[in-house]
Amino acid sequence: MERNFRVNLVNSLSGYKPANLIGTLGSDGVENLAIFSSVVHLGSDPALLGFIQRPIGEQSHTYKNIIASGFFTINHVSAAHVEQAHHTSARFEKDISEFKACGFTPRYAMGFTAPFVQEAPVQIGMRFVQEIKIELNDTRLMIGQIDHVFINDGLVDSDGSLRLEDAQVACISGLDTYFQAQRIARFPYAKPNPK
Amino acid sequence: MERNFRVNLVNSLSGYKPANLIGTLGSDGVENLAIFSSVVHLGSDPALLGFIQRPIGEQSHTYKNIIASGFFTINHVSAAHVEQAHHTSARFEKDISEFKACGFTPRYAMGFTAPFVQEAPVQIGMRFVQEIKIELNDTRLMIGQIDHVFINDGLVDSDGSLRLEDAQVACISGLDTYFQAQRIARFPYAKPNPK
Repeated sequence: MERNFRVNLVNSLSGYKPANLIGTLGSDGVENLAIFSSVVHLGSDPALLGFIQRPIGEQSHTYKNIIASGFFTINHVSAAHVEQAHHTSARFEKDISEFKACGFTPRYAMGFTAPFVQEAPVQIGMRFVQEIKIELNDTRLMIGQIDHVFINDGLVDSDGSLRLEDAQVACISGLDTYFQAQRIARFPYAKPNPK
Repeated sequence: MERNFRVNLVNSLSGYKPANLIGTLGSDGVENLAIFSSVVHLGSDPALLGFIQRPIGEQSHTYKNIIASGFFTINHVSAAHVEQAHHTSARFEKDISEFKACGFTPRYAMGFTAPFVQEAPVQIGMRFVQEIKIELNDTRLMIGQIDHVFINDGLVDSDGSLRLEDAQVACISGLDTYFQAQRIARFPYAKPNPK
């Protein structure tokens, strides 16, 4: 297979992926913001999320900032911000803040050193816990524990579920295609022989 | 936080998740099928996908079958099949095939011992490569390499991207809520200073 064809295909094969902006602060004081589509739920108690870090290169500011600072934020991208969010994937110089370059507003919470994205309807403050190297292809599973959660009014149902659709939260297919989701159905806890 | 509230909230916090049915064959000849929302792209060359396996218990038929057989399939769930797909999460007895119990049709490819889901618009045959234990919460990152791909006609663009929306592929929020996605936009490779 031709390389680009293969990359596009394999990146589409897992299905829809979340659209998240990861925010970090460098030891030089420069804020970094980057789009990721590999955030995955690892467990609810302790509340752990992970994401896949590609092989480390000259860039990889997100990774370097997380290792140095111990903190990062995960921020949901709404449909209104997908173009700006995608722009964070450009190779900006190290001294450029993607917040400023792409039109997002950094926001800080007391005692937490990574910047949140003010425009995001869901903002999660993560304490870095562990990186697990995947030797097969030199990637890493980066694991963090949820420390802070900021959610726009009206998005949390009485049972704790988030109504992502009410905030027009986006999802991603492949490398560069953004989607908005509409609810089809919610089902009760499944039993072998439902009445 | 009350336990159910916490579980629902944390399961929603990462954003939209893919809706995949993982098919396996037991050494006793019983087919297993189970819904997962944690499949993640690990790399394109080699073409690797992973998923998060919860702590192993009495059940965990998917895990046991993968370890024993070395193969599994990942199948996309379309909007028309979300109720059946969710039903696979019920605790069926070990000798019950979720294919039969939930109304899916197993399909086999030559030389590949795990069952595909005939109703799925995208069917991926995976060779198990490695499990990585996440000691923090006793979960595992299960890694497989893509061996076979079957995709319905008309879903692959000329550049390799999949048009998941044309097959009404579903995604998931939280534990039990299913969505269908509509394309917002596709963007070119991002550059720092676009014209």
